Amino acid sequence: MTAASSRAAAIAALAEILPGDALLTADEDVERYSRDWSGDHFGRPLAVARPRSVEQVSALMRHCWDTGLRVVPQGGLTGLVGAAVAAPEGEIVVSLERMNAVRQVSPIDFAMVVEAGCILEDAKTAADDADCLLPITFGAQGTCRIGGNVATNAGGFNVLRYGMTRDLVLGLEVVLADGRVWNGLKVLRKDNRGYDLKQLFIGSEGTLGIVTAVAFKLFPKPTQVETALVGLASVEDAMELYARARRACSDLLTAFELILRDGIEVTLRTRPDFPDPLAEAYPAYVLIEASAGGAVDLRGLIETFLGGADDIIRDGVIATSRAQADRLWLYRETMVESQGRGGRYLRTDVSVPISRIADFIAAALAAVRGRYPEAMPLAYGHVGDGNVHFNVIPPAGLAVEALDPLFHGAEELIFDVVDRLGGSISAEHGIGRVKQDAFLARIDPVALDLVTRLKDALDPKHILSNGRILRDDSIIKNR
Amino acid sequence: MTAASSRAAAIAALAEILPGDALLTADEDVERYSRDWSGDHFGRPLAVARPRSVEQVSALMRHCWDTGLRVVPQGGLTGLVGAAVAAPEGEIVVSLERMNAVRQVSPIDFAMVVEAGCILEDAKTAADDADCLLPITFGAQGTCRIGGNVATNAGGFNVLRYGMTRDLVLGLEVVLADGRVWNGLKVLRKDNRGYDLKQLFIGSEGTLGIVTAVAFKLFPKPTQVETALVGLASVEDAMELYARARRACSDLLTAFELILRDGIEVTLRTRPDFPDPLAEAYPAYVLIEASAGGAVDLRGLIETFLGGADDIIRDGVIATSRAQADRLWLYRETMVESQGRGGRYLRTDVSVPISRIADFIAAALAAVRGRYPEAMPLAYGHVGDGNVHFNVIPPAGLAVEALDPLFHGAEELIFDVVDRLGGSISAEHGIGRVKQDAFLARIDPVALDLVTRLKDALDPKHILSNGRILRDDSIIKNR
Repeated sequence: MTAASSRAAAIAALAEILPGDALLTADEDVERYSRDWSGDHFGRPLAVARPRSVEQVSALMRHCWDTGLRVVPQGGLTGLVGAAVAAPEGEIVVSLERMNAVRQVSPIDFAMVVEAGCILEDAKTAADDADCLLPITFGAQGTCRIGGNVATNAGGFNVLRYGMTRDLVLGLEVVLADGRVWNGLKVLRKDNRGYDLKQLFIGSEGTLGIVTAVAFKLFPKPTQVETALVGLASVEDAMELYARARRACSDLLTAFELILRDGIEVTLRTRPDFPDPLAEAYPAYVLIEASAGGAVDLRGLIETFLGGADDIIRDGVIATSRAQADRLWLYRETMVESQGRGGRYLRTDVSVPISRIADFIAAALAAVRGRYPEAMPLAYGHVGDGNVHFNVIPPAGLAVEALDPLFHGAEELIFDVVDRLGGSISAEHGIGRVKQDAFLARIDPVALDLVTRLKDALDPKHILSNGRILRDDSIIKNR
Repeated sequence: MTAASSRAAAIAALAEILPGDALLTADEDVERYSRDWSGDHFGRPLAVARPRSVEQVSALMRHCWDTGLRVVPQGGLTGLVGAAVAAPEGEIVVSLERMNAVRQVSPIDFAMVVEAGCILEDAKTAADDADCLLPITFGAQGTCRIGGNVATNAGGFNVLRYGMTRDLVLGLEVVLADGRVWNGLKVLRKDNRGYDLKQLFIGSEGTLGIVTAVAFKLFPKPTQVETALVGLASVEDAMELYARARRACSDLLTAFELILRDGIEVTLRTRPDFPDPLAEAYPAYVLIEASAGGAVDLRGLIETFLGGADDIIRDGVIATSRAQADRLWLYRETMVESQGRGGRYLRTDVSVPISRIADFIAAALAAVRGRYPEAMPLAYGHVGDGNVHFNVIPPAGLAVEALDPLFHGAEELIFDVVDRLGGSISAEHGIGRVKQDAFLARIDPVALDLVTRLKDALDPKHILSNGRILRDDSIIKNR
């Protein structure tokens, strides 16, 4: 049998494990599993498996393990590093979309158990219905799925207060590369029985196992939210404001988002119906959110804090209603959505120590503007976490073939500044395939060896999300 | 050369790597590295290495790797599971005590970098001097060392608000079994570059690498602390109070400690100068602490909360001064210290889902009292984390040879209840050697296989803390 015909036979046998429409192979059926949210990454799967249970995931993985079929788990396809679309070498997509149950919400335990295919927003709603908060919050929450949130250790707006997804996971159920099920699904808040195995899978981008269910830590639902937008003279002042805010607001801050004037202008151009948010224009803006439950006078707290910072705050507004707060957030959201209106743009997601944020933005802006004066750099982000999305929008009308050189050149400039300041080239988005070259060019050989040992220990045949994070030269050589 | 003489030669060669008093071999010199805090565990090391730098740790590990000498890293020896004293088969103790520098405290980054041998209290003081809080807090903090806190994923009083040690670690510097140094020492709050390697070492009890330095996340130092002690009719009421407290106190709770009436009586017997803390005796007591910074009216918050819970709170006192708060804490601390006055006792450290705490305590008390009516079970703990220390004090005058059967029998009774409620037999203390049998009797085979693969991947010669967590039959067979 040739390699191709044995692969075809292995796929045919898969149909017995996944009867009916649980296995899709027709081109028109697999189309929607082939392209991610950004539109930048495309990969036609050999087939799409849509298991309904952990037993089906287990059976299909055992079959893939035995036959050498390669597999990529897939959630809502909202990742930004090309990890979840099929690789060109040919992979079975395992879509978790049918495993979307909320298995349990326990407000007394402040915990919930959700299947990997559950849409984040549905999980958040289920928690909310029990007067609890599942804090993971970001733009794609209506589309992304829990398994992907865990596999990528998703961040977002509320990391400042509640941490990354990793910090919110109490337990996992995972199907391993060889089909065995690791049942680590528990709602204990403290458990020091040997190695904390769940940490292996969180943020591993599907390369070490397929997450099928997750136990999350929940929080009391805040009963008060205060939102403010302030204008400042500089990024330095914004960071000074952050330092004061953490102390003055008693860790009740839930968001601290920096927007530069260019970002506001992008929004105003897209939405001419929006007024400039403050009476005058300022070099830097910060969107601040704090939330609380119980008898805290949150409004008074925010007013006292902002009032006490009038030496650096030039102007500001505190929302007096949820509608007004939503409108303040719209300045940020519109900016993010607008940057892609003109077509492709460079998206980065970097972090530096909080104390270096202002240096980073100044140096990266200078570098990009110096080399590409026609392009528009746009810096914004979760600066309380040291996280900046430093993007570059190409000049209108730039020839298509000039885009990649611009993106590559600008990215190198930005990453050089990140390196110099001891930062990370991927704060939230992960590595996948898109960041792989930049990641591998920088990783220290000891760390690379550890990553490789983990991959070899958990997926010795390299059948799971092969070629993400690590290149898999061994597999490619064997074909 | 015999095995013994080659080992002697290997130890002699170590003295060249660690000149002067950096290597101790004389019996009287190694004595204080031979016994842990509890006094229950003793192990005479082949030699004690006291490196002053990561380079020295690296060189000594390379030598041990090459020669097959086995090694156990040691901090303040306050662990409770016998992991850090030398194994009877013969080990070099690597004491980190000379690597005790606070390398950096950065209040703007809310981060600090500390060497592994730094005493926790010294690290906390350094953070405090910069108006920041390193939240790890427990009885042994004046003796334990940072490396041990990380290796055991230490818990303590403030987990409720700030998490376990794992949640506070931003980066690590680790010497691997073969002497290579993994430099993961960074102060970034978000970093999704591939696998989060530091998670491997946190809580691994020294079996996967030697932590030499740690970057911690800090918090603003609270400017207000409120402490209250309340009396309640039952554990159920205590847990109801907890559920309300989380919502009413806006996640500003820093401790929620349950003490049963027996615990108060242990304190009163030990300290006859202490009055009964409340006017009457109650079946259950809760010590509540909340803390805040900035313009939060914390006192008003606590008063409003406790006043609103007068349907379940029978009586209570809010401390009006730091001295009074310390005195309330003394009831708990004295109880903990007193239980060991009469000699050995059974110490457990279990967790169950928060919703099962009351069931757990009732069932475990009934089981232990039923089988051992003369013994005194003492249940207390960090119930907001689902964590109970359920200890058993033997009847006075019990014959020494009857102690172990009592401890073993009572532990089995307690662990049976834990198993039935989906809990953990080790919430904080780890496995080490003491909990190994109970751990291995319960671990699912898939989890055991994963643990073994990790150990083999990172320490293939099994020279690091061999026989902790996992038995190492292979090594024992080879001797």
